[in-house]
Amino acid sequence: MNAHRIILLAHGSSDPRWCATFEALVAPALQARPDARIAYMELAEPSLGKSVEQATLEGVREITIIPLFLAAGRHLRRDIPAEIRELEQRHGVPIRLQSPVGEHPYLAAAIRDIVVETAVSEQEP
Amino acid sequence: MNAHRIILLAHGSSDPRWCATFEALVAPALQARPDARIAYMELAEPSLGKSVEQATLEGVREITIIPLFLAAGRHLRRDIPAEIRELEQRHGVPIRLQSPVGEHPYLAAAIRDIVVETAVSEQEP
Repeated sequence: MNAHRIILLAHGSSDPRWCATFEALVAPALQARPDARIAYMELAEPSLGKSVEQATLEGVREITIIPLFLAAGRHLRRDIPAEIRELEQRHGVPIRLQSPVGEHPYLAAAIRDIVVETAVSEQEP
Repeated sequence: MNAHRIILLAHGSSDPRWCATFEALVAPALQARPDARIAYMELAEPSLGKSVEQATLEGVREITIIPLFLAAGRHLRRDIPAEIRELEQRHGVPIRLQSPVGEHPYLAAAIRDIVVETAVSEQEP
């Protein structure tokens, strides 16, 4: 039992292929951190609310949410903070919201590496 | 002058903070690859259409689009392919659409590293 939980929060979609991509995207993270889980804002399960409830039932006393978003839009600036306040009150657990992964230099470095390796069929002059 | 162009395609937003995050996210890639540019699907400039037009005006004969999306939703499965076909016909340049960056193992590794480094205030038992 971990006293801390990390929730990797994705937007969610009704398209199972979309969720499958996110499950693959977080698989190495979930393997590396036994206290990490994936959850979805909407349209897919588990929801953020269910995930927080489950964590508190397991005795978790502190939660960190890492948004799987490239940038902060309306959801991250408004909807998620409001939902977090409500969940903190309902379950009596402090929830910390990190910056979206897209603001982290590791993401920029990964995108650089993908772009650098992109093959082109024509030689550059 | 490069005969090839890589267009890093983001969704776009009317919020300048959103676009600023994407500009920071692609800065290392643009620095590493002089043939790379950023463009937006909607709500921000340059648009994909403008970016393709500019490339052909500069003599580019082949374009690769790398979507800055974590997963393929409706935009990438339907809207973007349709727009690409239209742009190929209008400008007479072949355009190749890569998988979204979120499907690349480098992104999963970067997210793992972010999660692994996430500090917790309580010790794990």
